[in-house]
Amino acid sequence: MSSTRVVIVGGGFAGIEAAKRLRYAPVEVVVIDRTNHFVFQPLLYQVATGGLAPSDISVPIRWLLRRQRNTRVVLGEVTRIDVAQRTVEIDDGSATEPYDFLILAAGARHAYFAHSEWEPYAPGLKTLEDALTVRERFLMAFEEAERADDEARRAALQTFVIVGGGPTGVELAGMMSTIARTALPRDFRRTDPSKARVILLEAGPRLLPAMPEDLSERARQDLVELGVDVRLGTVVTAVGEDGVRYEGVGQGVPSEFVPARSVFWAAGNKALSLGAQLGAPTDRAGRVEVALDLSVPGHPEIFVIGDLATLPYREGRRVPWVAPAAMQQGRWAAMNVLRTLGRLPRRPFRYVNKGDLATIGRHRAVADFGSFTVSGWIAWWLWLTIHIFYLAGFRNRLSVMLQWAWSYFTYQRGVRLIVSEQGRKVGAPHGQHDVTTT
Amino acid sequence: MSSTRVVIVGGGFAGIEAAKRLRYAPVEVVVIDRTNHFVFQPLLYQVATGGLAPSDISVPIRWLLRRQRNTRVVLGEVTRIDVAQRTVEIDDGSATEPYDFLILAAGARHAYFAHSEWEPYAPGLKTLEDALTVRERFLMAFEEAERADDEARRAALQTFVIVGGGPTGVELAGMMSTIARTALPRDFRRTDPSKARVILLEAGPRLLPAMPEDLSERARQDLVELGVDVRLGTVVTAVGEDGVRYEGVGQGVPSEFVPARSVFWAAGNKALSLGAQLGAPTDRAGRVEVALDLSVPGHPEIFVIGDLATLPYREGRRVPWVAPAAMQQGRWAAMNVLRTLGRLPRRPFRYVNKGDLATIGRHRAVADFGSFTVSGWIAWWLWLTIHIFYLAGFRNRLSVMLQWAWSYFTYQRGVRLIVSEQGRKVGAPHGQHDVTTT
Repeated sequence: MSSTRVVIVGGGFAGIEAAKRLRYAPVEVVVIDRTNHFVFQPLLYQVATGGLAPSDISVPIRWLLRRQRNTRVVLGEVTRIDVAQRTVEIDDGSATEPYDFLILAAGARHAYFAHSEWEPYAPGLKTLEDALTVRERFLMAFEEAERADDEARRAALQTFVIVGGGPTGVELAGMMSTIARTALPRDFRRTDPSKARVILLEAGPRLLPAMPEDLSERARQDLVELGVDVRLGTVVTAVGEDGVRYEGVGQGVPSEFVPARSVFWAAGNKALSLGAQLGAPTDRAGRVEVALDLSVPGHPEIFVIGDLATLPYREGRRVPWVAPAAMQQGRWAAMNVLRTLGRLPRRPFRYVNKGDLATIGRHRAVADFGSFTVSGWIAWWLWLTIHIFYLAGFRNRLSVMLQWAWSYFTYQRGVRLIVSEQGRKVGAPHGQHDVTTT
Repeated sequence: MSSTRVVIVGGGFAGIEAAKRLRYAPVEVVVIDRTNHFVFQPLLYQVATGGLAPSDISVPIRWLLRRQRNTRVVLGEVTRIDVAQRTVEIDDGSATEPYDFLILAAGARHAYFAHSEWEPYAPGLKTLEDALTVRERFLMAFEEAERADDEARRAALQTFVIVGGGPTGVELAGMMSTIARTALPRDFRRTDPSKARVILLEAGPRLLPAMPEDLSERARQDLVELGVDVRLGTVVTAVGEDGVRYEGVGQGVPSEFVPARSVFWAAGNKALSLGAQLGAPTDRAGRVEVALDLSVPGHPEIFVIGDLATLPYREGRRVPWVAPAAMQQGRWAAMNVLRTLGRLPRRPFRYVNKGDLATIGRHRAVADFGSFTVSGWIAWWLWLTIHIFYLAGFRNRLSVMLQWAWSYFTYQRGVRLIVSEQGRKVGAPHGQHDVTTT
């Protein structure tokens, strides 16, 4: 039995949970990830806005799984799945791992609605690299504005457009507006960061579409009070170095071009292409339509979970692509592997919705628990408590609490680092900023 | 009076101290730096070995000086000094700042003894970017070894050569050997990180040449106990992708080629080229020979301080290029500017040697206070206390204490992040790793 090999592709919420549930099982587990670290994605926007350091929200995958003697961690990118041979190929063939069971949890990237040419001008927020790119652009814009002589250029540099009114867009917009108004003003002499404009564009008629309408409206009001210019019913039609053009689709919403040197993308996801190699049906975003036991139709030995999978939940709704759902699926896939080995029937996945939370700013958040909703400071403290509780690893939790307490009392941001070689060059074309590490 | 302009080039220990001392003076201060942050350089090796996050040892220069209303911070690189016009040119002419007094504190880079072709294979440790490069190479070597099939390649990957037996080399060597033996072994399955070899090469007959001989010997013994292979009397003659060749110059020291995929450079500094533009005499490392009042001979309006300057101290000794000396010079230069404005005679710089400290590992350090020396755990706790005390900014101090306490009790390293896009690619040529941010 101990030669049964379970290969898990992806060390995010879904993959790590699956691996943990196989700790004491009579199987050999291999976890493969492109990076050496697990990232607590719900707090990525905090790294992107200089509130937390990358290491505060990440831990080495090896370290997370160090006590699981049956588990090996491989740093590499799975480039091909051979469904017939039951192997995955790593880094274009530099290594191969055979599997008896495959759990695919490789996640998603942000999508640009078939406009990948916008990407250099509008970074998204999925990985630590993304977060560092956003942080650097955000901070550099104020530096460049301080040095600009031309008034129009300065205004464009101090205009930040965020595309997408889901949780990430709302969190980024609220935080960026707050930082510009509270943390930065004293530091600049020629410009006034508190005059920065943060514009949030959303194509639909309301923010946070997954939440009840009154919470959407509450979030909008909170953002407006924080100084964010919220524009609903606006579909982006062009993104370039100089700004964003959008078409007004809501009633009475005019089309406009916004001169802005910084655009951030929080609209739409696309599953990684690995799912397509399975030959299974996928949705428009490339997610694999999995069976109720989370396996791929026709391939009971392959499970797809997390942002890469889609399956129904109840009356026409899909299981959402959020961390709690990914963790539940990870556990479920591991359980179904073990049940199969034990010759027990598999069980269909049951999603338990623990509620939706989105934070907008200091003492401002909205929470939807199905049977009731909360907003304002109670929701904010709830958000804080839940995120610290779930943040993996004792050290990180303490460090994050410390940073947040410091920010809370001082209104400052702790991690205002610009470290990329390219980013340092004031005036470098936006598309060429080449930010990596932390 | 308020139109007297003091331009400070460089936001390190020397430059920041000079700026702070001018806070209440009737002058306009401009601080220019290539980066947006001040770095606490003595702890760079902690970032390089994953003990601290980059943000733990750095703070934005703007933030440090936010309360000085007479001070403006400019992000940019000074590319030329026009001594006749009394202006400095920023980023090849994109901006110009006129000065009445110039305080040049731009610092040094590591030097490769006229072998700049070694640089891609042997990164040094002067900036946060450097530290992140070292960290990534160090961590990636273990990842690559875990994936290597060839025994010789694996051995070369697990061999780390550090060139230079000064404080930085000693600290790096001790820390890397300790991490390989305590923090990493449980995380790997195919390789044993505790078998890693850390080799410290020093051309001279002893380590820490600035310290008394018995402390040098104590440091050597401590390193050997930590598993470091210390080789004195070895002059490096070649550095490449495959390893390091050195010539034995000490008695009975054979010449050898060491197969190693990771080489780190901690030998020798070179002042930045700005000093040469002043037309003043410089030493072999490019440092400006300043007058006793820290000004440039023939240019009383220009002060050169910190790693960029050299001046005598007592009986044939030079003021050392360490943080305490840089801070003292910063204060002194500011004072001499103010005395000049007040028509008082300038005072010659007097260096107060507060002692030399070097840490080797847990409970191991050496300290030289001139009239007495300390080693062992007392020196180590001294080192710890002094560094936490001096670390700028309340937040960082707390965060560092927390991280150190955690590392102390768990023997773990908190910041084991590999985040560069290039670094991720296992097997990429060493010279092409392109690490930036954090």
